[in-house]
Amino acid sequence: MTTKFNNVYIDECYTIASIYEKDGPISDYFDLIYDKDFYYGCDTFEKAEEKMLSNSISKLINRAKVIDSDVDYVISGDLENQIASSNYAMRDFNIPFLGIYSACATFGQGLLLGANLIEGKRANKIIVATSSHNMVAEKQFRNPTEYGAPKKKSTTWTATGAASMLLTNRKKRIKITSATAGIVQDKGIKDVNNMGAVMAIAAADTIKRHLSDLKIKADYYDLILTGDLGIYGKNILIDYLKDSGIDLSKNYDDCGLILYDIKKQPVYAGASGPVCSALVLCSYILKEMERGKYQKVLIVPTGAVFNSTKVFQKDSIPSIAHAIGLEVIN
Amino acid sequence: MTTKFNNVYIDECYTIASIYEKDGPISDYFDLIYDKDFYYGCDTFEKAEEKMLSNSISKLINRAKVIDSDVDYVISGDLENQIASSNYAMRDFNIPFLGIYSACATFGQGLLLGANLIEGKRANKIIVATSSHNMVAEKQFRNPTEYGAPKKKSTTWTATGAASMLLTNRKKRIKITSATAGIVQDKGIKDVNNMGAVMAIAAADTIKRHLSDLKIKADYYDLILTGDLGIYGKNILIDYLKDSGIDLSKNYDDCGLILYDIKKQPVYAGASGPVCSALVLCSYILKEMERGKYQKVLIVPTGAVFNSTKVFQKDSIPSIAHAIGLEVIN
Repeated sequence: MTTKFNNVYIDECYTIASIYEKDGPISDYFDLIYDKDFYYGCDTFEKAEEKMLSNSISKLINRAKVIDSDVDYVISGDLENQIASSNYAMRDFNIPFLGIYSACATFGQGLLLGANLIEGKRANKIIVATSSHNMVAEKQFRNPTEYGAPKKKSTTWTATGAASMLLTNRKKRIKITSATAGIVQDKGIKDVNNMGAVMAIAAADTIKRHLSDLKIKADYYDLILTGDLGIYGKNILIDYLKDSGIDLSKNYDDCGLILYDIKKQPVYAGASGPVCSALVLCSYILKEMERGKYQKVLIVPTGAVFNSTKVFQKDSIPSIAHAIGLEVIN
Repeated sequence: MTTKFNNVYIDECYTIASIYEKDGPISDYFDLIYDKDFYYGCDTFEKAEEKMLSNSISKLINRAKVIDSDVDYVISGDLENQIASSNYAMRDFNIPFLGIYSACATFGQGLLLGANLIEGKRANKIIVATSSHNMVAEKQFRNPTEYGAPKKKSTTWTATGAASMLLTNRKKRIKITSATAGIVQDKGIKDVNNMGAVMAIAAADTIKRHLSDLKIKADYYDLILTGDLGIYGKNILIDYLKDSGIDLSKNYDDCGLILYDIKKQPVYAGASGPVCSALVLCSYILKEMERGKYQKVLIVPTGAVFNSTKVFQKDSIPSIAHAIGLEVIN
């Protein structure tokens, strides 16, 4: 189902990034870069991620000149088991909290929920946030980085940082125009080192339904962006949609290939993690929309909603993607 | 923030329970009991939980005489890392999926989101679902049950089962009247064997805000129900609220003490798990509301939103509770 919005705007954002993001092509667009190490002044990587997320929300609140009680809900999720970064970070705020999980598509699901709540007049101001941390994710899903386990070239590199966005019903430059919720897809792929292939299916399904529901073609948008398919997943998606008569060759890119330069950085197939698409959207894309480079953008955060236990039990890897339409108001 | 609803009704529910729930006081109210073992015909406990959840949703769809495309969203979450039961079960449906996580308060958050989306005319029919499985949760959060690790008397027993509810904008006997979203609480408790104490704080905060926002007293409801505080948490909550001038002595109970009989069953302080409050609500409470025993009920699912890694790192345990008001229409 694709829902449309007439009264949902982006007020402000705040982005925090780390070492690998600083070395990438869009580092000038971030609000804060912590490049000393992966600890962000904390004892553990987990506390570092929690602090990044908390800081991104509190700095957003300051920037938007609101206080806790002005914000109806914070909607946030992350890759840590039990979305711990979000749950623990929310101790720092006196704001009702709605925890979500959609793997690396989490920020997309948050925007979809936030926009629907505001459009339905069930809230006036909602903060949508997410984070990820390379070392936290590697430890949890693969091996602690210190083990030095080799990686396949089709793996992606979990981005480190936090991003938050304040949605409002008050008129601003950029509005959210539509949202298509993902349907879980699973074509039987079991390779945890090739998430791009796993998620391309979900991106294809959601983009097809989005365009069909709104009766528009892909060139309606100046830019269509997937979340973190990486170079292999990106090419698979282009092929999938070509078979459905949808041409993505002109106006399509993947956030995982915008956040990092895979030719220069040791990040394999590109960036991933829930903060990947959130960082790219909340910094580079929105600023370039304001500057006039893009007027209509469709962002499609993509998530592999798997679990290590299920993988060890030889189950395949499901995926999901949510699409969010954005437009500059003239 | 407490939001009110005028057009959100409960259409149908479907509950599946297991061995310990069969031995409890309300077993006659469940739709399906699988009491052969904890495998539900599957190879692993994890697959059993996934199948229970999937079956509960598909049987709900049959009972309500709808098809996948009639349902705008399924909103579901569970205790498994990456809410895997929900994500994997959703492979069986062609319905947009929104994954949520609020520990054992997940069903409450689902009802809150579903009701707001329907009241705001952003959806017509939404399925809210959850599951938990004792053996899956023990393995993930404590030790595999087969190890035989002793338990403290203040621990609760994760319920096994799945529950799903279809919300609709069409008039039915029972309506959802209000919802108060939780604010994360943390008073520094670190004892993972006493979740009742951890969560009582969150229940107190949410109930206080709910009553204050709506300018009503506790006796407005025929019954106030917390999710899974157990016997110790229940008494702590009564004490907390007595200090705030709120008397819960007459019309308050905890779902964890309704699902199991702690005097007869070896379940320590009571039942817990996201399915605990969902099972009690979707079977016993709704049926007794229809029969006239209760007219106005406030259910407050409670969750300890912690993470094993954070506990090992000596962090304290945050908690959250969401309140949902229900009423029989005459």
